[in-house]
Amino acid sequence: MEIEVIENVMQYNKEEADVNRSLFKKSNVLVINLLSAPGAGKTSLIIETIKMLGNEYKIGVIEGDISSTHDAQKIKHLIDEVIQINTGGTCHLNASMVAHAISRLNLKNLDILIIENVGNLICPVGFDLGEDFKVVLSSVTEGDDKPVKYPKAFIRASLVVLNKTDMMAYNDFEYDFFESKIKELNPNCPIIKVSCKTGSGLDDWADWIRAFLK
Amino acid sequence: MEIEVIENVMQYNKEEADVNRSLFKKSNVLVINLLSAPGAGKTSLIIETIKMLGNEYKIGVIEGDISSTHDAQKIKHLIDEVIQINTGGTCHLNASMVAHAISRLNLKNLDILIIENVGNLICPVGFDLGEDFKVVLSSVTEGDDKPVKYPKAFIRASLVVLNKTDMMAYNDFEYDFFESKIKELNPNCPIIKVSCKTGSGLDDWADWIRAFLK
Repeated sequence: MEIEVIENVMQYNKEEADVNRSLFKKSNVLVINLLSAPGAGKTSLIIETIKMLGNEYKIGVIEGDISSTHDAQKIKHLIDEVIQINTGGTCHLNASMVAHAISRLNLKNLDILIIENVGNLICPVGFDLGEDFKVVLSSVTEGDDKPVKYPKAFIRASLVVLNKTDMMAYNDFEYDFFESKIKELNPNCPIIKVSCKTGSGLDDWADWIRAFLK
Repeated sequence: MEIEVIENVMQYNKEEADVNRSLFKKSNVLVINLLSAPGAGKTSLIIETIKMLGNEYKIGVIEGDISSTHDAQKIKHLIDEVIQINTGGTCHLNASMVAHAISRLNLKNLDILIIENVGNLICPVGFDLGEDFKVVLSSVTEGDDKPVKYPKAFIRASLVVLNKTDMMAYNDFEYDFFESKIKELNPNCPIIKVSCKTGSGLDDWADWIRAFLK
């Protein structure tokens, strides 16, 4: 019985995600579902992305949190098209929540939509939101073993961004180990090293996005 | 229908947790359910705890992970009583998983049992394992806004341990903000600042545990 309910939930989510996807396609907007553990720097990466690409492209953001508008407030200073989803305890965004959020955005005016998922390396992975790409953000201070311990996120990623590389000198982070474990799980997945604090590597991230907008 | 199933799951978990709790009481073992985001340093804190208290008390550890025995292997060098639970995708430990694990431990020989939950600040919070205390481990490098964004973990905590305080100089972490938000959610919750790397503050953590073992 329980399994049947879960299957129905996932099937329903898939159908809703397909509706979102066709809306995104029709509006010609690139949609990134940004996943990470709490505190890896999703909001910082979004802020830097807006600073770098905001003059070239119209960017919208959906902020997913259990509660609070803490992150949305930071982004609202930079762009108008920001919607906060408060899940009210739920540990991930689903396609239905995103459908509600996009009904309040002017999608046709956007080139890029970044969905900041709830900070959680596990549950959000299974929920298709209709996005073009899942981008997994990891950070040096979390340690180099995250691909070993949370493999599904890395298997499903179209790109891994490694943040806080300015902290490399203060942490026992073996980049070769981190990279080799990702390659075992997802051989063709690119990895971009950035520091949202120093700006290092952010050009590579901006170029990765630009490549899909030409 | 879905809600009913979830309620049944939670009721069943509560019953299993009560069975675990009475076993723990009978065996006179102090049980700590250690919760944090991925990479906050749960395993490091457990290793330091064993080094500090392992000569005074018999310590057992249950390692909860989605997959891998990565963390258990690190601890197996130090103590014999280590059990790895692989949840196979599930985002939290439940009381039934812990019941299976403790059937393989010699509880009567233990003074302290530390359960390292799956790295997730959301889902594990709702699942009673029969423990005496939930301890929430946060880290400086995750940022000072974790209590705002993941309030339930901090509401349910008997103690918050803030790790990676040696990183304070390199992060925009406002301790007063962090503390004030915890006090809003959980006014009597103590906070202990530690660095598992430098050893700073670990004596306070050891003393907090010792106080329940006299």
